[in-house]
Amino acid sequence: MRLGLVDAVFEEAAEAVEGADLVILCTPVGTLGAIAEAIAPALAPGAILTDVGSVKEAVVRDVAPHVPRGVHFIPGHPVAGTEETGPEAGFAELFEGRWCVLTPIEGTDAAALAKLEAFWQALGSHVARMTPAHHDRVLAITSHVPHLIAYTIVGTAADLEEVSKSEVITYSAGGFRDFTRIAASDPVMWRDIFLANREAVLEMLGRFTEDLTALQRAIRWGDGAMLESFFARTRNIRRGIIAAGQETPAPDFGRPHGSAELRPADEEGAEEG
Amino acid sequence: MRLGLVDAVFEEAAEAVEGADLVILCTPVGTLGAIAEAIAPALAPGAILTDVGSVKEAVVRDVAPHVPRGVHFIPGHPVAGTEETGPEAGFAELFEGRWCVLTPIEGTDAAALAKLEAFWQALGSHVARMTPAHHDRVLAITSHVPHLIAYTIVGTAADLEEVSKSEVITYSAGGFRDFTRIAASDPVMWRDIFLANREAVLEMLGRFTEDLTALQRAIRWGDGAMLESFFARTRNIRRGIIAAGQETPAPDFGRPHGSAELRPADEEGAEEG
Repeated sequence: MRLGLVDAVFEEAAEAVEGADLVILCTPVGTLGAIAEAIAPALAPGAILTDVGSVKEAVVRDVAPHVPRGVHFIPGHPVAGTEETGPEAGFAELFEGRWCVLTPIEGTDAAALAKLEAFWQALGSHVARMTPAHHDRVLAITSHVPHLIAYTIVGTAADLEEVSKSEVITYSAGGFRDFTRIAASDPVMWRDIFLANREAVLEMLGRFTEDLTALQRAIRWGDGAMLESFFARTRNIRRGIIAAGQETPAPDFGRPHGSAELRPADEEGAEEG
Repeated sequence: MRLGLVDAVFEEAAEAVEGADLVILCTPVGTLGAIAEAIAPALAPGAILTDVGSVKEAVVRDVAPHVPRGVHFIPGHPVAGTEETGPEAGFAELFEGRWCVLTPIEGTDAAALAKLEAFWQALGSHVARMTPAHHDRVLAITSHVPHLIAYTIVGTAADLEEVSKSEVITYSAGGFRDFTRIAASDPVMWRDIFLANREAVLEMLGRFTEDLTALQRAIRWGDGAMLESFFARTRNIRRGIIAAGQETPAPDFGRPHGSAELRPADEEGAEEG
Protein backbone atom coordinates (compact mmCIF):
# COMPACT_ATOMS: atom_id res chain seq x y z
CA MET A 1 0.00 0.00 0.00
CA ARG A 2 2.73 2.44 1.01
CA LEU A 3 4.69 1.77 -2.21
CA GLY A 4 1.52 2.12 -4.31
CA LEU A 5 1.88 -1.44 -5.62
CA VAL A 6 -1.54 -2.71 -4.50
CA ASP A 7 -5.04 -1.34 -4.07
CA ALA A 8 -6.04 -3.63 -1.24
CA VAL A 9 -4.45 -5.87 1.38
CA PHE A 10 -6.30 -8.69 3.13
CA GLU A 11 -5.77 -10.49 6.43
CA GLU A 12 -6.83 -13.83 4.97
CA ALA A 13 -5.64 -15.23 1.65
CA ALA A 14 -9.15 -16.55 0.93
CA GLU A 15 -10.57 -13.01 1.02
CA ALA A 16 -7.88 -11.78 -1.36
CA VAL A 17 -8.71 -14.24 -4.14
CA GLU A 18 -12.49 -13.71 -4.17
CA GLY A 19 -13.59 -12.83 -7.70
CA ALA A 20 -10.02 -12.69 -9.03
CA ASP A 21 -9.35 -13.68 -12.67
CA LEU A 22 -5.70 -14.43 -11.94
CA VAL A 23 -4.21 -15.62 -8.66
CA ILE A 24 -0.38 -15.80 -8.34
CA LEU A 25 1.08 -17.53 -5.29
CA CYS A 26 4.41 -15.86 -4.40
CA THR A 27 5.52 -17.37 -1.08
CA PRO A 28 8.20 -19.99 -0.24
CA VAL A 29 7.32 -23.30 -1.90
CA GLY A 30 6.85 -25.08 1.43
CA THR A 31 3.81 -22.90 2.17
CA LEU A 32 1.91 -23.37 -1.10
CA GLY A 33 -0.07 -26.51 -0.18
CA ALA A 34 -1.61 -24.93 2.92
CA ILE A 35 -2.38 -21.71 1.06
CA ALA A 36 -4.03 -23.61 -1.81
CA GLU A 37 -6.17 -25.47 0.71
CA ALA A 38 -7.18 -22.21 2.40
CA ILE A 39 -8.10 -20.33 -0.77
CA ALA A 40 -9.71 -23.23 -2.69
CA PRO A 41 -13.31 -22.55 -1.60
CA ALA A 42 -13.02 -18.87 -2.55
CA LEU A 43 -11.55 -19.29 -6.06
CA ALA A 44 -13.87 -18.10 -8.82
CA PRO A 45 -14.86 -20.55 -11.58
CA GLY A 46 -12.70 -19.90 -14.65
CA ALA A 47 -9.90 -18.27 -12.60
CA ILE A 48 -6.28 -19.00 -13.43
CA LEU A 49 -4.18 -20.10 -10.45
CA THR A 50 -0.41 -20.00 -10.88
CA ASP A 51 2.71 -19.58 -8.78
CA VAL A 52 6.33 -18.40 -9.07
CA GLY A 53 8.00 -21.20 -7.10
CA SER A 54 11.49 -22.38 -8.05
CA VAL A 55 10.46 -26.06 -7.82
CA LYS A 56 7.56 -27.49 -9.80
CA GLU A 57 6.96 -31.22 -9.09
CA ALA A 58 6.50 -30.62 -5.35
CA VAL A 59 4.21 -27.66 -6.05
CA VAL A 60 2.04 -29.75 -8.37
CA ARG A 61 1.93 -32.48 -5.71
CA ASP A 62 0.98 -30.01 -2.92
CA VAL A 63 -1.36 -27.64 -4.76
CA ALA A 64 -3.19 -29.64 -7.45
CA PRO A 65 -5.28 -31.79 -5.06
CA HIS A 66 -6.89 -28.65 -3.62
CA VAL A 67 -7.78 -26.94 -6.89
CA PRO A 68 -11.57 -26.94 -7.52
CA ARG A 69 -12.96 -28.15 -10.85
CA GLY A 70 -13.29 -25.20 -13.25
CA VAL A 71 -10.21 -23.38 -11.89
CA HIS A 72 -7.15 -23.51 -14.18
CA PHE A 73 -4.03 -24.38 -12.21
CA ILE A 74 -0.89 -23.70 -14.29
CA PRO A 75 2.41 -23.89 -12.36
CA GLY A 76 4.99 -21.27 -13.35
CA HIS A 77 8.49 -20.03 -12.60
CA PRO A 78 9.89 -16.71 -13.81
CA VAL A 79 13.68 -17.19 -13.77
CA ALA A 80 14.42 -13.63 -12.66
CA GLY A 81 15.25 -11.76 -9.51
CA THR A 82 18.11 -10.41 -7.47
CA GLU A 83 19.55 -11.42 -4.11
CA GLU A 84 17.04 -9.08 -2.48
CA THR A 85 13.55 -10.00 -1.29
CA GLY A 86 10.23 -8.30 -0.70
CA PRO A 87 8.15 -5.60 -2.40
CA GLU A 88 10.89 -2.93 -2.10
CA ALA A 89 13.24 -5.11 -4.18
CA GLY A 90 10.97 -5.05 -7.23
CA PHE A 91 11.51 -2.86 -10.29
CA ALA A 92 9.80 -2.47 -13.66
CA GLU A 93 12.44 -4.21 -15.80
CA LEU A 94 12.79 -7.29 -13.58
CA PHE A 95 11.18 -9.72 -16.04
CA GLU A 96 12.37 -8.08 -19.27
CA GLY A 97 14.33 -10.46 -21.46
CA ARG A 98 14.19 -13.18 -18.77
CA TRP A 99 12.58 -16.59 -19.28
CA CYS A 100 9.38 -17.67 -17.57
CA VAL A 101 8.86 -21.45 -17.48
CA LEU A 102 5.30 -22.78 -17.41
CA THR A 103 4.84 -26.46 -16.55
CA PRO A 104 1.23 -27.24 -17.51
CA ILE A 105 -0.16 -30.52 -16.20
CA GLU A 106 -2.29 -32.97 -18.18
CA GLY A 107 -5.65 -31.65 -19.33
CA THR A 108 -4.69 -27.96 -19.02
CA ASP A 109 -7.11 -25.64 -20.85
CA ALA A 110 -5.36 -24.24 -23.96
CA ALA A 111 -7.08 -20.84 -23.73
CA ALA A 112 -6.11 -20.36 -20.10
CA LEU A 113 -2.52 -21.34 -20.91
CA ALA A 114 -2.40 -18.85 -23.80
CA LYS A 115 -3.74 -16.13 -21.51
CA LEU A 116 -1.09 -16.76 -18.86
CA GLU A 117 1.64 -16.80 -21.53
CA ALA A 118 0.39 -13.44 -22.81
CA PHE A 119 0.54 -12.09 -19.25
CA TRP A 120 4.24 -12.96 -18.86
CA GLN A 121 5.03 -11.73 -22.37
CA ALA A 122 3.38 -8.40 -21.53
CA LEU A 123 5.88 -8.08 -18.66
CA GLY A 124 8.69 -8.54 -21.18
CA SER A 125 9.44 -12.22 -20.56
CA HIS A 126 10.07 -15.05 -23.01
CA VAL A 127 7.87 -18.05 -22.18
CA ALA A 128 8.95 -21.70 -22.33
CA ARG A 129 6.96 -24.85 -21.57
CA MET A 130 8.33 -28.04 -20.09
CA THR A 131 7.28 -30.82 -17.75
CA PRO A 132 7.55 -30.21 -13.99
CA ALA A 133 10.16 -32.98 -13.72
CA HIS A 134 12.37 -31.54 -16.47
CA HIS A 135 12.06 -28.04 -15.00
CA ASP A 136 13.30 -29.34 -11.65
CA ARG A 137 16.38 -30.93 -13.22
CA VAL A 138 17.22 -27.86 -15.33
CA LEU A 139 16.90 -25.56 -12.31
CA ALA A 140 18.88 -27.94 -10.08
CA ILE A 141 21.99 -27.31 -12.19
CA THR A 142 21.35 -23.69 -13.25
CA SER A 143 20.17 -22.35 -9.91
CA HIS A 144 19.84 -24.70 -6.93
CA VAL A 145 23.29 -26.32 -6.87
CA PRO A 146 25.01 -22.97 -7.61
CA HIS A 147 23.19 -21.46 -4.62
CA LEU A 148 24.17 -24.38 -2.39
CA ILE A 149 27.81 -24.09 -3.41
CA ALA A 150 27.80 -20.34 -2.84
CA TYR A 151 26.25 -20.72 0.63
CA THR A 152 28.85 -23.38 1.41
CA ILE A 153 32.01 -21.49 0.41
CA VAL A 154 30.85 -18.35 2.22
CA GLY A 155 30.20 -20.48 5.32
CA THR A 156 33.57 -22.25 4.99
CA ALA A 157 35.38 -18.91 4.79
CA ALA A 158 33.50 -17.54 7.80
CA ASP A 159 34.56 -20.52 9.92
CA LEU A 160 38.33 -20.41 9.32
CA GLU A 161 40.48 -19.91 12.38
CA GLU A 162 43.77 -18.89 10.83
CA VAL A 163 42.43 -16.57 8.12
CA SER A 164 40.32 -13.95 9.88
CA LYS A 165 36.87 -12.87 8.74
CA SER A 166 38.23 -9.37 8.13
CA GLU A 167 40.91 -10.78 5.80
CA VAL A 168 38.25 -12.69 3.88
CA ILE A 169 36.33 -9.43 3.48
CA THR A 170 39.40 -7.32 2.62
CA TYR A 171 40.72 -9.62 -0.12
CA SER A 172 37.34 -10.70 -1.49
CA ALA A 173 37.95 -8.99 -4.84
CA GLY A 174 40.08 -12.00 -5.80
CA GLY A 175 36.90 -13.92 -6.66
CA PHE A 176 35.16 -14.71 -3.36
CA ARG A 177 32.81 -11.70 -3.47
CA ASP A 178 31.09 -13.08 -6.59
CA PHE A 179 29.73 -15.94 -4.44
CA THR A 180 28.46 -13.72 -1.66
CA ARG A 181 25.72 -12.24 -3.84
CA ILE A 182 23.56 -15.33 -4.21
CA ALA A 183 24.60 -16.48 -0.72
CA ALA A 184 22.79 -13.36 0.55
CA SER A 185 19.45 -14.69 -0.74
CA ASP A 186 16.48 -15.40 1.52
CA PRO A 187 17.23 -18.37 3.85
CA VAL A 188 13.63 -19.61 4.22
CA MET A 189 12.93 -19.50 0.49
CA TRP A 190 16.10 -21.52 -0.15
CA ARG A 191 15.53 -23.98 2.68
CA ASP A 192 12.19 -24.84 1.07
CA ILE A 193 13.69 -25.17 -2.42
CA PHE A 194 16.28 -27.73 -1.30
CA LEU A 195 13.73 -29.72 0.68
CA ALA A 196 11.31 -29.71 -2.26
CA ASN A 197 13.82 -30.55 -5.01
CA ARG A 198 15.85 -33.07 -3.06
CA GLU A 199 16.31 -35.80 -5.66
CA ALA A 200 17.46 -33.58 -8.54
CA VAL A 201 19.73 -31.48 -6.29
CA LEU A 202 21.40 -34.56 -4.79
CA GLU A 203 22.00 -36.03 -8.21
CA MET A 204 23.53 -32.85 -9.71
CA LEU A 205 25.55 -32.36 -6.53
CA GLY A 206 26.94 -35.87 -6.93
CA ARG A 207 28.16 -35.01 -10.42
CA PHE A 208 29.66 -31.73 -9.21
CA THR A 209 31.52 -33.51 -6.39
CA GLU A 210 32.83 -36.12 -8.82
CA ASP A 211 34.20 -33.40 -11.10
CA LEU A 212 35.67 -31.44 -8.19
CA THR A 213 37.37 -34.60 -6.90
CA ALA A 214 38.96 -35.17 -10.31
CA LEU A 215 40.36 -31.60 -10.30
CA GLN A 216 41.52 -32.02 -6.70
CA ARG A 217 43.39 -35.18 -7.70
CA ALA A 218 44.98 -33.35 -10.67
CA ILE A 219 46.21 -30.63 -8.30
CA ARG A 220 47.58 -33.18 -5.81
CA TRP A 221 49.49 -35.08 -8.53
CA GLY A 222 50.59 -31.96 -10.44
CA ASP A 223 48.67 -32.82 -13.62
CA GLY A 224 48.92 -29.39 -15.30
CA ALA A 225 47.72 -30.63 -18.68
CA MET A 226 44.44 -31.89 -17.20
CA LEU A 227 43.87 -28.61 -15.32
CA GLU A 228 44.60 -26.44 -18.35
CA SER A 229 42.33 -28.40 -20.68
CA PHE A 230 39.48 -28.36 -18.13
CA PHE A 231 39.84 -24.61 -17.57
CA ALA A 232 40.03 -23.90 -21.30
CA ARG A 233 36.63 -25.32 -22.19
CA THR A 234 34.44 -23.26 -19.85
CA ARG A 235 34.83 -19.87 -21.57
CA ASN A 236 32.41 -20.65 -24.37
CA ILE A 237 29.53 -21.13 -21.94
CA ARG A 238 29.84 -17.52 -20.77
CA ARG A 239 30.05 -16.30 -24.37
CA GLY A 240 26.82 -18.22 -25.08
CA ILE A 241 25.08 -16.60 -22.11
CA ILE A 242 26.10 -13.13 -23.27
CA ALA A 243 25.01 -13.86 -26.87
CA ALA A 244 21.63 -15.11 -25.56
CA GLY A 245 21.02 -11.73 -23.88
CA GLN A 246 21.15 -13.27 -20.38
CA GLU A 247 24.30 -11.47 -19.23
CA THR A 248 26.08 -8.17 -19.71
CA PRO A 249 29.09 -8.27 -22.05
CA ALA A 250 30.93 -5.78 -19.79
CA PRO A 251 33.91 -7.17 -17.83
CA ASP A 252 33.36 -7.80 -14.10
CA PHE A 253 29.51 -7.77 -14.55
CA GLY A 254 29.85 -4.07 -15.36
CA ARG A 255 30.70 -3.44 -11.70
CA PRO A 256 31.80 0.10 -10.94
CA HIS A 257 35.57 0.52 -10.51
CA GLY A 258 37.44 3.20 -8.62
CA SER A 259 37.08 3.98 -4.90
CA ALA A 260 34.57 6.79 -5.28
CA GLU A 261 32.07 4.63 -7.17
CA LEU A 262 32.27 1.82 -4.63
CA ARG A 263 31.81 3.85 -1.47
CA PRO A 264 28.20 3.40 -0.28
CA ALA A 265 26.66 6.84 -0.87
CA ASP A 266 24.20 6.75 2.01
CA GLU A 267 26.44 5.57 4.80
CA GLU A 268 27.27 8.25 7.30
CA GLY A 269 30.84 8.29 8.51
CA ALA A 270 31.77 5.22 6.47
CA GLU A 271 35.49 4.64 6.62
CA GLU A 272 37.58 2.33 4.52
CA GLY A 273 38.82 -0.63 6.58
CA MET B 1 53.09 0.04 -28.56
CA ARG B 2 49.85 0.23 -30.53
CA LEU B 3 47.84 1.08 -27.37
CA GLY B 4 50.42 3.69 -26.34
CA LEU B 5 51.12 1.83 -23.10
CA VAL B 6 54.86 1.37 -23.59
CA ASP B 7 57.75 3.25 -25.18
CA ALA B 8 59.79 0.21 -26.10
CA VAL B 9 59.36 -3.53 -26.56
CA PHE B 10 62.25 -6.02 -26.40
CA GLU B 11 62.73 -9.49 -27.79
CA GLU B 12 64.67 -10.61 -24.73
CA ALA B 13 63.61 -9.97 -21.12
CA ALA B 14 67.24 -9.31 -20.17
CA GLU B 15 67.41 -6.38 -22.59
CA ALA B 16 64.19 -4.92 -21.17
CA VAL B 17 65.46 -4.69 -17.59
CA GLU B 18 68.83 -3.04 -18.36
CA GLY B 19 69.16 0.11 -16.28
CA ALA B 20 65.59 -0.13 -14.91
CA ASP B 21 64.88 1.19 -11.39
CA LEU B 22 61.79 -1.01 -11.05
CA VAL B 23 61.18 -4.39 -12.71
CA ILE B 24 57.71 -5.98 -12.38
CA LEU B 25 57.26 -9.58 -13.52
CA CYS B 26 53.68 -10.05 -14.85
CA THR B 27 53.53 -13.55 -16.35
CA PRO B 28 52.00 -16.82 -15.07
CA VAL B 29 53.72 -17.87 -11.84
CA GLY B 30 55.15 -21.04 -13.39
CA THR B 31 57.36 -18.93 -15.68
CA LEU B 32 58.92 -16.62 -13.08
CA GLY B 33 61.90 -18.77 -12.09
CA ALA B 34 63.20 -19.04 -15.65
CA ILE B 35 62.62 -15.34 -16.27
CA ALA B 36 64.46 -14.38 -13.08
CA GLU B 37 67.39 -16.54 -14.15
CA ALA B 38 67.44 -14.91 -17.59
CA ILE B 39 67.32 -11.30 -16.37
CA ALA B 40 69.56 -11.66 -13.31
CA PRO B 41 72.84 -10.66 -15.01
CA ALA B 42 71.22 -7.55 -16.52
CA LEU B 43 69.59 -6.18 -13.34
CA ALA B 44 71.03 -2.84 -12.20
CA PRO B 45 72.45 -2.55 -8.66
CA GLY B 46 69.82 -0.93 -6.40
CA ALA B 47 66.93 -1.94 -8.68
CA ILE B 48 63.65 -3.15 -7.14
CA LEU B 49 62.44 -6.47 -8.55
CA THR B 50 58.81 -7.40 -7.82
CA ASP B 51 55.98 -9.44 -9.36
CA VAL B 52 52.17 -9.60 -9.41
CA GLY B 53 51.76 -13.37 -9.02
CA SER B 54 48.78 -14.79 -7.12
CA VAL B 55 50.99 -17.22 -5.16
CA LYS B 56 53.96 -16.07 -3.09
CA GLU B 57 55.83 -18.97 -1.41
CA ALA B 58 56.52 -20.68 -4.74
CA VAL B 59 57.60 -17.38 -6.30
CA VAL B 60 60.05 -16.72 -3.48
CA ARG B 61 61.36 -20.28 -3.87
CA ASP B 62 61.76 -19.92 -7.66
CA VAL B 63 62.95 -16.30 -7.98
CA ALA B 64 65.00 -15.48 -4.86
CA PRO B 65 67.96 -17.79 -5.65
CA HIS B 66 68.60 -15.90 -8.91
CA VAL B 67 68.49 -12.35 -7.51
CA PRO B 68 71.97 -10.72 -7.47
CA ARG B 69 73.27 -9.06 -4.30
CA GLY B 70 72.29 -5.37 -4.29
CA VAL B 71 68.99 -5.92 -6.11
CA HIS B 72 65.89 -5.62 -3.87
CA PHE B 73 63.49 -8.51 -4.51
CA ILE B 74 60.07 -7.78 -2.92
CA PRO B 75 57.28 -10.20 -3.93
CA GLY B 76 53.87 -8.58 -4.48
CA HIS B 77 50.28 -9.32 -5.41
CA PRO B 78 47.72 -6.66 -6.34
CA VAL B 79 44.33 -8.30 -5.63
CA ALA B 80 42.60 -6.69 -8.59
CA GLY B 81 41.55 -7.57 -12.10
CA THR B 82 38.68 -8.83 -14.18
CA GLU B 83 38.07 -12.10 -16.00
CA GLU B 84 39.84 -10.60 -19.03
CA THR B 85 43.55 -10.84 -19.79
CA GLY B 86 46.16 -8.88 -21.69
CA PRO B 87 47.02 -5.22 -22.27
CA GLU B 88 43.60 -4.41 -23.83
CA ALA B 89 41.88 -5.46 -20.60
CA GLY B 90 43.60 -2.79 -18.52
CA PHE B 91 42.01 0.50 -17.42
CA ALA B 92 43.10 3.42 -15.27
CA GLU B 93 40.94 2.63 -12.21
CA LEU B 94 41.90 -1.06 -11.99
CA PHE B 95 43.92 -0.75 -8.77
CA GLU B 96 41.90 2.03 -7.13
CA GLY B 97 40.57 1.02 -3.73
CA ARG B 98 41.92 -2.53 -4.15
CA TRP B 99 44.50 -4.11 -1.85
CA CYS B 100 48.06 -4.88 -2.89
CA VAL B 101 49.80 -7.43 -0.70
CA LEU B 102 53.59 -7.26 -0.35
CA THR B 103 55.34 -10.25 1.20
CA PRO B 104 58.88 -9.03 2.00
CA ILE B 105 61.42 -11.70 2.85
CA GLU B 106 63.99 -11.54 5.63
CA GLY B 107 66.54 -8.76 5.30
CA THR B 108 64.48 -6.63 2.92
CA ASP B 109 65.74 -3.06 2.63
CA ALA B 110 63.28 -0.72 4.38
CA ALA B 111 63.79 2.14 1.93
CA ALA B 112 63.14 -0.08 -1.11
CA LEU B 113 60.02 -1.47 0.55
CA ALA B 114 58.74 2.05 1.28
CA LYS B 115 59.37 3.04 -2.34
CA LEU B 116 57.41 0.06 -3.68
CA GLU B 117 54.54 0.77 -1.26
CA ALA B 118 54.45 4.37 -2.49
CA PHE B 119 54.28 3.10 -6.08
CA TRP B 120 51.15 1.02 -5.39
CA GLN B 121 49.59 3.78 -3.33
CA ALA B 122 50.13 6.20 -6.23
CA LEU B 123 48.02 3.82 -8.36
CA GLY B 124 45.23 4.10 -5.79
CA SER B 125 45.83 0.85 -3.91
CA HIS B 126 45.90 0.13 -0.21
CA VAL B 127 49.04 -1.80 0.74
CA ALA B 128 49.24 -4.67 3.24
CA ARG B 129 52.24 -6.72 4.35
CA MET B 130 52.18 -10.37 5.35
CA THR B 131 54.38 -13.45 5.12
CA PRO B 132 54.36 -15.41 1.84
CA ALA B 133 52.86 -18.43 3.66
CA HIS B 134 50.00 -16.44 5.18
CA HIS B 135 49.31 -14.74 1.83
CA ASP B 136 48.97 -18.13 0.18
CA ARG B 137 46.42 -19.34 2.75
CA VAL B 138 44.38 -16.13 2.59
CA LEU B 139 44.27 -16.24 -1.21
CA ALA B 140 43.48 -19.97 -1.25
CA ILE B 141 40.12 -19.25 0.39
CA THR B 142 39.36 -15.80 -1.10
CA SER B 143 40.41 -16.54 -4.67
CA HIS B 144 41.88 -19.94 -5.58
CA VAL B 145 39.19 -22.27 -4.22
CA PRO B 146 36.38 -19.98 -5.50
CA HIS B 147 37.93 -20.16 -8.98
CA LEU B 148 38.26 -23.94 -8.79
CA ILE B 149 34.63 -24.32 -7.73
CA ALA B 150 33.46 -21.98 -10.49
CA TYR B 151 35.45 -23.87 -13.14
CA THR B 152 34.00 -27.13 -11.80
CA ILE B 153 30.31 -26.20 -11.81
CA VAL B 154 30.55 -24.70 -15.29
CA GLY B 155 32.22 -27.92 -16.47
CA THR B 156 29.64 -30.10 -14.72
CA ALA B 157 26.81 -28.21 -16.40
CA ALA B 158 28.48 -28.46 -19.81
CA ASP B 159 28.72 -32.25 -19.49
CA LEU B 160 25.11 -33.06 -18.64
CA GLU B 161 23.28 -35.31 -21.06
CA GLU B 162 19.66 -34.72 -20.10
CA VAL B 163 19.85 -30.95 -19.59
CA SER B 164 21.16 -29.45 -22.82
CA LYS B 165 23.90 -26.82 -23.02
CA SER B 166 21.38 -24.40 -24.53
CA GLU B 167 19.06 -24.88 -21.53
CA VAL B 168 21.96 -24.16 -19.18
CA ILE B 169 22.61 -20.95 -21.11
CA THR B 170 18.94 -19.93 -21.37
CA TYR B 171 18.15 -20.33 -17.67
CA SER B 172 21.50 -19.12 -16.36
CA ALA B 173 19.96 -16.04 -14.71
CA GLY B 174 18.86 -18.33 -11.85
CA GLY B 175 22.37 -18.09 -10.39
CA PHE B 176 24.66 -20.11 -12.67
CA ARG B 177 25.83 -17.12 -14.73
CA ASP B 178 27.54 -15.60 -11.65
CA PHE B 179 30.00 -18.51 -11.73
CA THR B 180 30.79 -18.22 -15.42
CA ARG B 181 32.60 -14.90 -14.96
CA ILE B 182 35.58 -16.17 -13.01
CA ALA B 183 35.43 -19.48 -14.91
CA ALA B 184 36.24 -17.42 -18.03
CA SER B 185 39.64 -16.47 -16.61
CA ASP B 186 42.93 -17.39 -18.29
CA PRO B 187 43.51 -21.19 -18.19
CA VAL B 188 47.33 -21.11 -18.14
CA MET B 189 47.49 -18.49 -15.38
CA TRP B 190 45.12 -20.59 -13.26
CA ARG B 191 46.83 -23.90 -14.01
CA ASP B 192 50.04 -22.41 -12.63
CA ILE B 193 48.32 -20.98 -9.54
CA PHE B 194 46.88 -24.36 -8.52
CA LEU B 195 50.16 -26.17 -9.13
CA ALA B 196 52.07 -23.53 -7.14
CA ASN B 197 49.67 -23.27 -4.18
CA ARG B 198 48.84 -26.97 -3.90
CA GLU B 199 49.01 -27.43 -0.13
CA ALA B 200 46.86 -24.47 0.87
CA VAL B 201 44.31 -25.11 -1.91
CA LEU B 202 43.94 -28.79 -0.98
CA GLU B 203 43.46 -27.93 2.68
CA MET B 204 40.80 -25.26 2.06
CA LEU B 205 39.13 -27.54 -0.47
CA GLY B 206 38.95 -30.25 2.18
CA ARG B 207 37.09 -27.90 4.50
CA PHE B 208 34.75 -26.82 1.72
CA THR B 209 33.94 -30.44 0.84
CA GLU B 210 33.30 -31.24 4.50
CA ASP B 211 30.83 -28.35 4.76
CA LEU B 212 29.16 -29.25 1.47
CA THR B 213 28.77 -32.85 2.61
CA ALA B 214 27.06 -31.67 5.81
CA LEU B 215 24.57 -29.61 3.77
CA GLN B 216 24.05 -32.51 1.37
CA ARG B 217 23.23 -34.76 4.31
CA ALA B 218 20.78 -32.17 5.68
CA ILE B 219 19.01 -32.10 2.32
CA ARG B 220 18.88 -35.91 2.14
CA TRP B 221 17.39 -36.21 5.62
CA GLY B 222 15.11 -33.18 5.33
CA ASP B 223 16.79 -31.18 8.11
CA GLY B 224 15.22 -27.81 7.32
CA ALA B 225 16.37 -26.19 10.58
CA MET B 226 20.03 -26.91 9.79
CA LEU B 227 19.69 -25.54 6.24
CA GLU B 228 17.93 -22.37 7.36
CA SER B 229 20.43 -21.58 10.11
CA PHE B 230 23.38 -22.17 7.75
CA PHE B 231 21.86 -19.97 5.04
CA ALA B 232 20.99 -17.21 7.53
CA ARG B 233 24.55 -16.55 8.72
CA THR B 234 26.19 -15.79 5.34
CA ARG B 235 24.49 -12.44 4.66
CA ASN B 236 26.68 -10.45 7.03
CA ILE B 237 29.83 -11.33 5.09
CA ARG B 238 28.47 -9.59 1.99
CA ARG B 239 27.45 -6.56 4.08
CA GLY B 240 31.01 -6.43 5.40
CA ILE B 241 32.46 -6.53 1.89
CA ILE B 242 30.22 -3.68 0.78
CA ALA B 243 31.05 -1.62 3.89
CA ALA B 244 34.77 -2.20 3.23
CA GLY B 245 34.42 -0.62 -0.23
CA GLN B 246 35.24 -3.91 -1.99
CA GLU B 247 31.83 -4.40 -3.64
CA THR B 248 29.01 -2.33 -5.07
CA PRO B 249 25.95 -1.96 -2.82
CA ALA B 250 23.67 -2.19 -5.89
CA PRO B 251 21.58 -5.39 -6.21
CA ASP B 252 22.76 -7.95 -8.78
CA PHE B 253 26.28 -6.38 -8.90
CA GLY B 254 24.64 -3.34 -10.52
CA ARG B 255 24.09 -5.43 -13.67
CA PRO B 256 21.97 -3.75 -16.31
CA HIS B 257 18.36 -4.97 -16.44
CA GLY B 258 15.98 -4.84 -19.37
CA SER B 259 16.48 -6.44 -22.79
CA ALA B 260 17.84 -3.34 -24.49
CA GLU B 261 20.67 -2.90 -21.97
CA LEU B 262 21.72 -6.54 -22.20
CA ARG B 263 21.93 -6.83 -25.95
CA PRO B 264 25.59 -6.63 -26.99
CA ALA B 265 25.86 -3.27 -28.74
CA ASP B 266 28.61 -4.19 -31.17
CA GLU B 267 27.34 -7.53 -32.38
CA GLU B 268 25.97 -7.42 -35.85
CA GLY B 269 22.78 -9.35 -36.37
CA ALA B 270 22.66 -10.60 -32.77
CA GLU B 271 19.34 -12.31 -32.15
CA GLU B 272 17.86 -13.41 -28.86
CA GLY B 273 17.86 -17.20 -28.52
